[in-house]
Amino acid sequence: MSEQLTLYLHKLSPFSQKVELALIEANAPYRGHQVDVFNKPEWFTSKVAPFGGKVPTVTYGGPSVDPQDPSPLSTKITESNVILEFLADLYPDSGLLPKDPVLRAKVRFFVDANTKHVEGPFYDFLRGRGSYENVLKGIEFVQGLLEEGRDFAVGNHYTIADACISPHLARLRIVTETDIGQFPVGMGSKLGEELKGPKFTKFTKYVDRMLERPSLKQSYDKEGVVTYFKTFFVRV
Amino acid sequence: MSEQLTLYLHKLSPFSQKVELALIEANAPYRGHQVDVFNKPEWFTSKVAPFGGKVPTVTYGGPSVDPQDPSPLSTKITESNVILEFLADLYPDSGLLPKDPVLRAKVRFFVDANTKHVEGPFYDFLRGRGSYENVLKGIEFVQGLLEEGRDFAVGNHYTIADACISPHLARLRIVTETDIGQFPVGMGSKLGEELKGPKFTKFTKYVDRMLERPSLKQSYDKEGVVTYFKTFFVRV
Repeated sequence: MSEQLTLYLHKLSPFSQKVELALIEANAPYRGHQVDVFNKPEWFTSKVAPFGGKVPTVTYGGPSVDPQDPSPLSTKITESNVILEFLADLYPDSGLLPKDPVLRAKVRFFVDANTKHVEGPFYDFLRGRGSYENVLKGIEFVQGLLEEGRDFAVGNHYTIADACISPHLARLRIVTETDIGQFPVGMGSKLGEELKGPKFTKFTKYVDRMLERPSLKQSYDKEGVVTYFKTFFVRV
Repeated sequence: MSEQLTLYLHKLSPFSQKVELALIEANAPYRGHQVDVFNKPEWFTSKVAPFGGKVPTVTYGGPSVDPQDPSPLSTKITESNVILEFLADLYPDSGLLPKDPVLRAKVRFFVDANTKHVEGPFYDFLRGRGSYENVLKGIEFVQGLLEEGRDFAVGNHYTIADACISPHLARLRIVTETDIGQFPVGMGSKLGEELKGPKFTKFTKYVDRMLERPSLKQSYDKEGVVTYFKTFFVRV
């Protein structure tokens, strides 16, 4: 791949981390550039990410330039799941998506399940707006998709299914270990106890495996996320 | 494509229609089977669509059987956007997805925009739960993605971007023409007037083109949808 690829990200954003994970797992050359999402630079919202100035956004192609002086000649792609598919297309031999249409559909069903059953319920719970039961239901749904005896979400290889969920699994682990969040006191720990039980063995083993991946460790600032959670998800 | 493909659908469901549109546009052989979604048969929820018994679901491969006696040997795929991608994979020369990774990303960004900015706001509005302004904002967002002088959502060919939004555009047209819906009286007509204005010319012309497609007409029971809307979206 000779075209330049720049990832505009925030180190604490799980959506940015999805893309970093895929890039690292595909062994893809890229330049990462941190964006101050709390005080977005004008050049970012006007020239890189016009659709609301969201991270992650990638620029692809065009001249190799200073990330803070982006070229109008590069393509801009935003929305984490769209970028994951783009990377799978750019690197068809990476295994980020299998070659078989049926397996590809399974990966995409998992990605869709993560969006609907994990991302929504988990962050609502963290913000004290969603129910504990919905988080558990979502986890049960995802666990139902995991095949016994396999290391990955789908098939025998790391795919965008693993990349899309892993950043959330890491943050779920923080919640269950520290009870930090705007849910009632103790609910995070209770969730942790529940996930240690026999009903959730398959899911919890999958989480353990994902958190052990070198790509996860390389792309994850755990201390930073804990500090961020402590600051922004304060019980009132 | 020698494998059998059966689409379990409901004729009035816009999500089913997405898949029918893609099949027709790809000139793909398939068998359609209507499911009574108001009284789902046990064989459907247990053997075809275990994830909540949703339409559309397709079965792919396995022996050719009576749709009401599905084989455990076929693959079952559910979620309309996942099925659209599956069809694009099965028929790589159909143009349902372009070959170029950047164009593919544009198609997927459009599909994502339809999910977030059209499906949510429009059906909420129809049910009297969402705001008029959100519907307009969503339409503006989508219009911003349409390129001047092009017939299709992305590029020069009918893609899954067109297939995913067209069924909703047909239903939006019913709302603006008939004012049927659980929103306050007159708001549907007002929306229609607004969409006829110069601000929305690009969008409205796109809707007109999509509603003229033979695939749309073939897959659409307009009278049936009007009757359904009149029955289920009654103002109280």
